Amino acid sequence: MDEERLSRQMAFLLECDKSKLVTRQTYLADGSRKENDAEHAWHLGLMAFLLAEYASEPVSVARVMEMTLIHDLVEIDAGDTYAYDAAGNQTKRARELAAAERLFGLLPDDQRDFLRALWEEFEAGQTPEARFAAALDHIQPLLLNAATDGKSWVEHGVALASVLRRNEKTPEGSAALWSYALEHYVNPNAAAGRLR
Amino acid sequence: MDEERLSRQMAFLLECDKSKLVTRQTYLADGSRKENDAEHAWHLGLMAFLLAEYASEPVSVARVMEMTLIHDLVEIDAGDTYAYDAAGNQTKRARELAAAERLFGLLPDDQRDFLRALWEEFEAGQTPEARFAAALDHIQPLLLNAATDGKSWVEHGVALASVLRRNEKTPEGSAALWSYALEHYVNPNAAAGRLR
Repeated sequence: MDEERLSRQMAFLLECDKSKLVTRQTYLADGSRKENDAEHAWHLGLMAFLLAEYASEPVSVARVMEMTLIHDLVEIDAGDTYAYDAAGNQTKRARELAAAERLFGLLPDDQRDFLRALWEEFEAGQTPEARFAAALDHIQPLLLNAATDGKSWVEHGVALASVLRRNEKTPEGSAALWSYALEHYVNPNAAAGRLR
Repeated sequence: MDEERLSRQMAFLLECDKSKLVTRQTYLADGSRKENDAEHAWHLGLMAFLLAEYASEPVSVARVMEMTLIHDLVEIDAGDTYAYDAAGNQTKRARELAAAERLFGLLPDDQRDFLRALWEEFEAGQTPEARFAAALDHIQPLLLNAATDGKSWVEHGVALASVLRRNEKTPEGSAALWSYALEHYVNPNAAAGRLR
């Protein structure tokens, strides 16, 4: 066993614990509190293998799971940027790049490069796995928002047009899931006035 | 698209959200609060693919990830049973079986059977994947306990002998990780009097 290698891996895994402290804007399904990045990533990992049949193109389920589990780690340093925060989203990329350097740099070089490539693939959205992971990342908050009668949407005064714009590419990841989400989560809440 | 099938899958995924409300006895690395099942499962999923090289036997990393992500879902109904709670552990199996029936039963039959088999495989510990997943499940709390100077161990007056007994089979899943955990997490805390 390479003790130095394992020490770096465990230091990284310990640092990842901070993902449990990064609060998102979406509420849990019971509305009791907002969810955090670790919980969100776990939920996506579960969706990745239970909903893989709905990916618009064939995907490696294992790679989608890995991608969803690590996709928000950079927020440990960069913080969560709310999807509908225009100003925050302008500086997001620079903040997250610095975070990726530091965080993935805790790992042995081969795993640093693997996670960096995995995260960049997710960000670029140019592979079937990245497009499906992004679709899950967009649909999971719709599921939770619908379960809480649009609690987070109402608090932030989110417009239906913003939700639709943010999900322009979601069908490229999963046409079936987007169609379902639109019918069951988005449209009923727009009709009820919970999306402007 | 089979609308009825997808509705069942989404109902299950919504029910899974309750995993974020099941509190464990282990504290987060910063000691600020106890972690929950969803966060714990996410951490194990991450460990599954970053530490797979240390499995005592070759494993399917994808299956270990799936197993770790779902291994504690039954606690939504059955509650978390602390590793060192002897009375609770006597009724644990019956409570968890009933939970598995109800929870996995929300899914379409094929996925109900898949998740039930995956969970039973984890519980039985008779495959390389189950043994490695169990090793991760035992080592992750050691990492967090060490980071918090044994906060949960001290609160519960846990004995070193109990930790060693609970980890009797951990080397079967990963001899390397157990050896590392013993040297870096368990022994120093025993020496410091944080494990009886």
